Amino acid sequence: MKDENSPAKPGTLYGIGVGPGDPELITVKALRIIAACDLVVFPEPEEAGTRHLAFEIARRAMPELEKREFMGLYLPMTRDAAVMRVNQEKAAQRIMEQLREGKNLAFLTLGDPSVYSTSGYLHRLVEEGGFSVRIIPGVTSFCAAAAALGEDLVRGSEALHLIPASGDTAEAMGLAGTRVFMKMGRSLGEIRALVEERGLGSRTRIVENCGLENQRIWKSLEELPPGEAPGYFTLIIVKDGERS
Amino acid sequence: MKDENSPAKPGTLYGIGVGPGDPELITVKALRIIAACDLVVFPEPEEAGTRHLAFEIARRAMPELEKREFMGLYLPMTRDAAVMRVNQEKAAQRIMEQLREGKNLAFLTLGDPSVYSTSGYLHRLVEEGGFSVRIIPGVTSFCAAAAALGEDLVRGSEALHLIPASGDTAEAMGLAGTRVFMKMGRSLGEIRALVEERGLGSRTRIVENCGLENQRIWKSLEELPPGEAPGYFTLIIVKDGERS
Repeated sequence: MKDENSPAKPGTLYGIGVGPGDPELITVKALRIIAACDLVVFPEPEEAGTRHLAFEIARRAMPELEKREFMGLYLPMTRDAAVMRVNQEKAAQRIMEQLREGKNLAFLTLGDPSVYSTSGYLHRLVEEGGFSVRIIPGVTSFCAAAAALGEDLVRGSEALHLIPASGDTAEAMGLAGTRVFMKMGRSLGEIRALVEERGLGSRTRIVENCGLENQRIWKSLEELPPGEAPGYFTLIIVKDGERS
Repeated sequence: MKDENSPAKPGTLYGIGVGPGDPELITVKALRIIAACDLVVFPEPEEAGTRHLAFEIARRAMPELEKREFMGLYLPMTRDAAVMRVNQEKAAQRIMEQLREGKNLAFLTLGDPSVYSTSGYLHRLVEEGGFSVRIIPGVTSFCAAAAALGEDLVRGSEALHLIPASGDTAEAMGLAGTRVFMKMGRSLGEIRALVEERGLGSRTRIVENCGLENQRIWKSLEELPPGEAPGYFTLIIVKDGERS
């Protein structure tokens, strides 16, 4: 006989990578877990065009999601660490309220949860709150960009460096190997100058909105018209000068 | 009326990432394309334990593959570039023979085809042969390893560096950010020395055979017994000294 006063067994938070944009690039595991969870949760950034993107991808992969219980969490994309923390702490509280009720939650993130996602710190907070967290990896944007270009990123003994827009792009440009600059929409001018300085324009690839309907590709820096301003989800690949 | 003397329309080569090991980490797109192709092709390395691994993963994800037409291609894993090229050229010839007959081929690779796969050069040769090649990205081993650890790899302004065993591991160890050393089974002693030199043992994670039944994880270098010799598919993550 169920004791109605006993607390529910706490739920688990699943941090799920839905892949880079193409709904078919979601994994079988992600689909299965999203279908099995009680509540689907996703970040709600402010930026135009980025709103609900992880949810949108999952919804296209499984249209029945529209009829399921879901919850957006306000997680603005900002370089201000304090603003980020406050919102992640609020989001973690809302997640833990649901977990306490015994619900299993699917938290959707674009690409892979371990690579520059907003979910890392959130997962940590939920874990520190005493709840179980499981991560389901996804296809990253840079792998999808390489696939769209029909080129590999690295082979043999080459190193691969990923650098976010807020990272040290000048230093990274000096590294040997393939350099991938992520979410570079706003910093394109800076990268352009660094690439030109080193004469790497022809070894540069630019992919905007990879895997989405509005995907655009430039196979060298020279192909990109000077007035063109790719958006937030722009990835710049610079191959090694020594590479044939 | 079909002219029996007219050549068949040439087929397309699909370079497909089957993910890191867990059959559920294959994408919906990979499954669909493998199912639709006329012939499934995969690398056959010599090394014990690595034989047919990409095929094994796909077969677990779709057991009907066993009854399909498939073909192994001898592609030994070696640091000898000349040996590698010769075998890749032979493999490309065998692939192109099939494409000429109008067959669509699914070439399976472990993880993602753009990141240290044997397929990059092969794809290039087939493309140079005048055939159409399409790449389907997959989940990488390092994302799966981070998920298995329940940790993120990079956040904020941190850089992520991937270094293969044949790369400059000593130089890479000096870079700021998270360093991931791939396929390090044979070079563990070297990495151990570099990690200890910099006092990064507690920031080191070791994941062997990620996503397979024989997966093993050590959450610091100290946890790994001195006599222990992890195998070829071992990945070592060293986080930034400055990271909390």
